[in-house]
Amino acid sequence: MHEINLPEVLAEVSAECDRYERALTGNAVAELDALFWSSPTTIRYGASENLYGYAAIQQFRAQRPGKGLEREVLRREITTYGRDIATSHLEFRRQGQTRIGRQSQTWLRQAEGWRVVSAHVSWMD
Amino acid sequence: MHEINLPEVLAEVSAECDRYERALTGNAVAELDALFWSSPTTIRYGASENLYGYAAIQQFRAQRPGKGLEREVLRREITTYGRDIATSHLEFRRQGQTRIGRQSQTWLRQAEGWRVVSAHVSWMD
Repeated sequence: MHEINLPEVLAEVSAECDRYERALTGNAVAELDALFWSSPTTIRYGASENLYGYAAIQQFRAQRPGKGLEREVLRREITTYGRDIATSHLEFRRQGQTRIGRQSQTWLRQAEGWRVVSAHVSWMD
Repeated sequence: MHEINLPEVLAEVSAECDRYERALTGNAVAELDALFWSSPTTIRYGASENLYGYAAIQQFRAQRPGKGLEREVLRREITTYGRDIATSHLEFRRQGQTRIGRQSQTWLRQAEGWRVVSAHVSWMD
């Protein structure tokens, strides 16, 4: 079926995930918006919000305070399936906090490039 | 690119999600195991555990107490992309609790059928 972690695909998606991380911690809202797929089906569960559709995600980004977004990535796992599908998972810690955060994303290659179609961010209980 | 929500594909994945929900609330461990893709790349972030690889997920299921798994599904969104990719998202509440849980899963059609390759369950902050 889908070949796992073809090196060139894994390199592409890893670069997109790096780009996402820089945009997130720098609160580069336009860049974050660009990396999510512009579709009413795109969903993002955040630590304290459930956002259905690209418009809701964009609105959340626009209103979010731009401070305190730095985080240390403790572990990151990216898996690609064939040439058009990928998942990323990471554990993170915010400065001065002990609890562990988790982020998972599903990426699909669209005509316009790799885009996140599903994301979930949470604190571990 | 990927056609969204082809009716027959959406019906297939919805049936798998129904099956998963029944297995989860009934703690049908073998059924739950069967619905996750047997691969070291499969990842499940649970409310209070981060499980990397099918073996870790299987071990968690085997040891989990089988009581108190009932939950009310408040909202469910399933999206299919083409014929081999799907995501499911749902919000739930456990009996006697007020906090909202979220579950997201990425499903891929494998040679053996639809399988979850990534899952994330959390409580909303």
